[in-house]
Amino acid sequence: MAHPGDVSALAALLESHAVDARSICAVIGKTEGNGGVNDFTRGYFVDRLMTLLEHHLNEPADMLAQRIPCILSGGTEGVLSPHYTVLCRTASSAATDAPALAIGTAFSEPTDPALIGTSAHAASVAEAVRSAISDAGIDSVDDVHFVQVKTPCLTSARIAALAALGTAPPANSAGHSMARARAAGAMGVAVGLGELAIADIRDDMLLGDFGAYCSRASISSGVEVACNEVVVLGNSRRWSGPLVIAHRPMQDAIDLNSIHDVLGDLGLPAMRQIAGPERNRIRCVLVKAEPDRRGAIRGQRHTMLNDTDIDPQRHIRGAVGGLVAGVIGDTRIFVSGGAEHQGPDGGGLIAVIAERETRTELAGE
Amino acid sequence: MAHPGDVSALAALLESHAVDARSICAVIGKTEGNGGVNDFTRGYFVDRLMTLLEHHLNEPADMLAQRIPCILSGGTEGVLSPHYTVLCRTASSAATDAPALAIGTAFSEPTDPALIGTSAHAASVAEAVRSAISDAGIDSVDDVHFVQVKTPCLTSARIAALAALGTAPPANSAGHSMARARAAGAMGVAVGLGELAIADIRDDMLLGDFGAYCSRASISSGVEVACNEVVVLGNSRRWSGPLVIAHRPMQDAIDLNSIHDVLGDLGLPAMRQIAGPERNRIRCVLVKAEPDRRGAIRGQRHTMLNDTDIDPQRHIRGAVGGLVAGVIGDTRIFVSGGAEHQGPDGGGLIAVIAERETRTELAGE
Amino acid sequence: MAHPGDVSALAALLESHAVDARSICAVIGKTEGNGGVNDFTRGYFVDRLMTLLEHHLNEPADMLAQRIPCILSGGTEGVLSPHYTVLCRTASSAATDAPALAIGTAFSEPTDPALIGTSAHAASVAEAVRSAISDAGIDSVDDVHFVQVKTPCLTSARIAALAALGTAPPANSAGHSMARARAAGAMGVAVGLGELAIADIRDDMLLGDFGAYCSRASISSGVEVACNEVVVLGNSRRWSGPLVIAHRPMQDAIDLNSIHDVLGDLGLPAMRQIAGPERNRIRCVLVKAEPDRRGAIRGQRHTMLNDTDIDPQRHIRGAVGGLVAGVIGDTRIFVSGGAEHQGPDGGGLIAVIAERETRTELAGE
Amino acid sequence: MAHPGDVSALAALLESHAVDARSICAVIGKTEGNGGVNDFTRGYFVDRLMTLLEHHLNEPADMLAQRIPCILSGGTEGVLSPHYTVLCRTASSAATDAPALAIGTAFSEPTDPALIGTSAHAASVAEAVRSAISDAGIDSVDDVHFVQVKTPCLTSARIAALAALGTAPPANSAGHSMARARAAGAMGVAVGLGELAIADIRDDMLLGDFGAYCSRASISSGVEVACNEVVVLGNSRRWSGPLVIAHRPMQDAIDLNSIHDVLGDLGLPAMRQIAGPERNRIRCVLVKAEPDRRGAIRGQRHTMLNDTDIDPQRHIRGAVGGLVAGVIGDTRIFVSGGAEHQGPDGGGLIAVIAERETRTELAGE
Repeated sequence: MAHPGDVSALAALLESHAVDARSICAVIGKTEGNGGVNDFTRGYFVDRLMTLLEHHLNEPADMLAQRIPCILSGGTEGVLSPHYTVLCRTASSAATDAPALAIGTAFSEPTDPALIGTSAHAASVAEAVRSAISDAGIDSVDDVHFVQVKTPCLTSARIAALAALGTAPPANSAGHSMARARAAGAMGVAVGLGELAIADIRDDMLLGDFGAYCSRASISSGVEVACNEVVVLGNSRRWSGPLVIAHRPMQDAIDLNSIHDVLGDLGLPAMRQIAGPERNRIRCVLVKAEPDRRGAIRGQRHTMLNDTDIDPQRHIRGAVGGLVAGVIGDTRIFVSGGAEHQGPDGGGLIAVIAERETRTELAGE
Repeated sequence: MAHPGDVSALAALLESHAVDARSICAVIGKTEGNGGVNDFTRGYFVDRLMTLLEHHLNEPADMLAQRIPCILSGGTEGVLSPHYTVLCRTASSAATDAPALAIGTAFSEPTDPALIGTSAHAASVAEAVRSAISDAGIDSVDDVHFVQVKTPCLTSARIAALAALGTAPPANSAGHSMARARAAGAMGVAVGLGELAIADIRDDMLLGDFGAYCSRASISSGVEVACNEVVVLGNSRRWSGPLVIAHRPMQDAIDLNSIHDVLGDLGLPAMRQIAGPERNRIRCVLVKAEPDRRGAIRGQRHTMLNDTDIDPQRHIRGAVGGLVAGVIGDTRIFVSGGAEHQGPDGGGLIAVIAERETRTELAGE
Repeated sequence: MAHPGDVSALAALLESHAVDARSICAVIGKTEGNGGVNDFTRGYFVDRLMTLLEHHLNEPADMLAQRIPCILSGGTEGVLSPHYTVLCRTASSAATDAPALAIGTAFSEPTDPALIGTSAHAASVAEAVRSAISDAGIDSVDDVHFVQVKTPCLTSARIAALAALGTAPPANSAGHSMARARAAGAMGVAVGLGELAIADIRDDMLLGDFGAYCSRASISSGVEVACNEVVVLGNSRRWSGPLVIAHRPMQDAIDLNSIHDVLGDLGLPAMRQIAGPERNRIRCVLVKAEPDRRGAIRGQRHTMLNDTDIDPQRHIRGAVGGLVAGVIGDTRIFVSGGAEHQGPDGGGLIAVIAERETRTELAGE
Repeated sequence: MAHPGDVSALAALLESHAVDARSICAVIGKTEGNGGVNDFTRGYFVDRLMTLLEHHLNEPADMLAQRIPCILSGGTEGVLSPHYTVLCRTASSAATDAPALAIGTAFSEPTDPALIGTSAHAASVAEAVRSAISDAGIDSVDDVHFVQVKTPCLTSARIAALAALGTAPPANSAGHSMARARAAGAMGVAVGLGELAIADIRDDMLLGDFGAYCSRASISSGVEVACNEVVVLGNSRRWSGPLVIAHRPMQDAIDLNSIHDVLGDLGLPAMRQIAGPERNRIRCVLVKAEPDRRGAIRGQRHTMLNDTDIDPQRHIRGAVGGLVAGVIGDTRIFVSGGAEHQGPDGGGLIAVIAERETRTELAGE
């Protein structure tokens, strides 16, 4: 991407029929905004993407935006490179000898602003997650490896509007609302995956009890959406194709070993930097990270949470992005901040989509 | 460090006689400012440090500041933790069976503002480097692994003052002057180490020809110094003690393999994250890094150089700091930006001070 | 505007036929980005605006963008409110007893990247300015009060591309190129208005001799345009309507008296805050401002130029915006930074479009 | 001030005996940090100031810091110039024909971290305010025009420490704690001045009911203090000298008329920019301001509260500083953000110390 409105790479693929517009079921990407409330690069990209698809699908852009999740994380701090991944599914009658990457999506009803960041919000996310798992044709929740949710949040104007109506707003600032919405989303995924029961989710757990987390949940929050958009990624024998997905929680922001471990899960070498044909097998790296809220990493003070100049999420994306890009040898890494309840406190998660190991490779590619 | 003025850890060591104030020959550290022209955390720390040493050495703080280099890099972006390393040397008659870490320092004359960032500036740095090598008792320049230089730069006020005097300022902004001063410093180190001849250094090479670089030079530039302060680190048979130093250039900002290589040079395991007794052997990690000025890393666009909100040096310190901290398993890493001519273009260098491998360890610690 | 992609207010006016899309000749506005190289709010707004007009004019958006100048300044620091002004002209046979606001536009050929920020660039701007004056039907350059130019600049990628081709880039960074492009634009306006001859414009004057300036020039620079887009505003007897325009240079960033003076030129009261019917007469306030590059305002040091955290242009827009909004009593003020050669050094200019004084008012409204 | 550690101007005054160190009772100033939790320019300045006074008063710096309030607001956004005002009082037997500026100070006991930002905190501030009024020799609270309080806040580390002890922290982030501490301080001043009763102050009012405010309270909050430091400024017949003080609330961030009004209270001309001898009468301008939390100023949206790149307080200081500096014609203005409950919601207050009008002036200077 040359800029956040640049969809020319996909346009070329559509033009050359390398990609069929009808096969596109979701888009996940990173744009070069600040990742905060006033990041309009996400809206800009969605606008351009949907206008492009409108031309190819002869369906209004605003309708498309309501059925194709387009989940963008703003912020390409440090070495990170703006990019997007287009998830496609096509019909196939190929015989399947191993589970392959499976994709499912779902949209919830619009979220009531007064409920954003509450357990009711979590319940609606859980329902959408179950719907997306079903859409993916994944039989067991154990085969789900990554659940991306895009969920709405409050702006300061919406908070003021709620207060004016006599409703206690569920957050005291836009930033606070984004965090609470992500917390509710993560707990919703945990419920959707059967890790927790909805009855377990209390409002005061959200941003309160960080022992409760889901290491397969990746939540973004933004002012530009009105309902919960869900993308589920897992492995299923009902799908064929060369791709598989794996994931691992990251224990903290410098947990290099988890990165090696997830690569090992995929049969990729887990030492030094991945190179050559092994690197080419990697198609998409998805990471969530979070500045440790206790103010220290392995006992040493960090300064991310007390910085008035750079937002904590911008700090952590840059640091974890540098680490993961160093191992992968590629800077097109999806690293999203705001990992509240998404992996261990102060840590997060990593998921990788890669081509399956093949005999050809073993034979010496 | 609890804050940039916090020298309590050293105060306690001096109080308990664990450290003799007379043995202190240099201090290298990272403070939590922004690392730019308006970063006053460096001056604050120096002020407090020198006041502390004044009490112990009965020598005025401003005199101490002119003989003990105190080289601070502002900016603890991402996971980086504010910290400082105190370099001490004590007399010893111990038999030496292997070269040990050697330390030397030097101060140049004050730098003429009109010459900051020119080849004349480089020449004065070169002379100070030679003086510091001699002070370290290092016989061969090949045994030098790291040369830290702190060098003055122009503020916008000083630039205006030069212009008012009819002198063409050697830089058009404070940021530009910092960069030029670092370039001159790096070329000065190259000359001091015999890698280049002073006649080779032309003004237009500085920030012009990035093929010319020195992968043992680490240059900081700041408004708070008036002359070039130099610290040379290397290995020498004239020194004894458990420590040694090694270094490697980094080819780019995600060059994980160079980090493994420098650890390998020190007999440390070079795969996954260092842990346990091996991690304890590491005493100091020194890194220089730089956003690739061609706008891409391994062919993928990065956004560091066109960001109006976050300074490019803040971006790169956060990313490379995350990578190195991940390998070392510790966030007390000295990562300094502004690596112009200090290592390959878009890359930089890494130097590590560690305890020498001992038989005890091999025996199964 | 609720966000940078929000053109709903104009959409409603077009829908209700309050505005005829064919009458729109230019748009000037402020969006809430950072105003720098990586401000994509300007591109986003233009994209949405042109898509809207495409629907109403049945002409492709990209063609519209090449004939309707849409000049946006990013950055609504402090109290400034995102907004845009749509300049329309309609045919009329009304008798004219006084000069009225006249509007003219012009587009130059695409600017050769190798010439951006040079005297050749200035010459092409001058030609476009003369063309726009002619388009406005303004007979004397003395009746021109404001010339807005949007002009291209280099990104770091384009700079690298030029260097790779063996061409010396006319700037060493994207920010530097933006500044040089604005300087060339301002001198181009001076030439177009006959204040200077093109032979007077030397490359070394640009960002070199700030005694040369044009207090009717307002220049924006951005990566999103390829040629010079010009809007000329003045007064002409060939036009009718209730509006007139006036302007004044601002001597420095706190030159309150110039604001009062331009209001006085328009028959508005020039003391305390404008209120009631007088405020309603004001339709558009256009300001250029600049952090004094000598580092002080009236002898007192300012910190805008040495700040690594906040861009100098963001600082100055916030401060001057606060001052002008305080006098006008409205925060919808166009304040653009980067006023190199646009008004006195360290100052800038202010232009105001207002309804002409009428007898009704004098009679006691 | 050349930088935040620069106390040379006061050093020169002390050296020349123009100021007697024993007369110094408080210092109020602006330093060029970011004004946030990680602004160390305040601590740096205090450190240097107290070291200077230690030399002159032969009293340890840390003891001096506990009896001379040194209240600094970080952040010189826009045109603001770093500066400090030294408040001195000397014995005099001069006959007094009019009330003159009176100064009083007080220090509370250290504040329990668990109570920061609660009504108990407000109560301790109120007691210190009463003590400072008494110290100032002001008989009626009506003669108090400005009460500056410096009060502690929690860092993220302190918040985590409280939580670890099982105490519910009174704030969920450092920034939140700073805001709550300022709210408690403002309500404490209101109680100290008899505007409210302590029984009226409930915890949920703080940052909850902005209809409750004190337009004579100016509160700063910072990690570098442990107790409440209070400076009271008013007029009293017990004092003599040429200076007087006046104040006005500001209704919003563009309330130009209040600035004119406070100048009028002091017999200064209240139109256009103050100049010449009248400007010389002004000695100190103290302003508190706040981004309107409802997201709009006079009905127009502002973007300060949703900006991830620039802190809202930095935005508002720049804007209001530009406005006040424009009226005063001087950029040495104390503008402090964080005006919660200090003046009307979205507004704040202005206080000015000036020389009393004299007949000489009236005779036509």
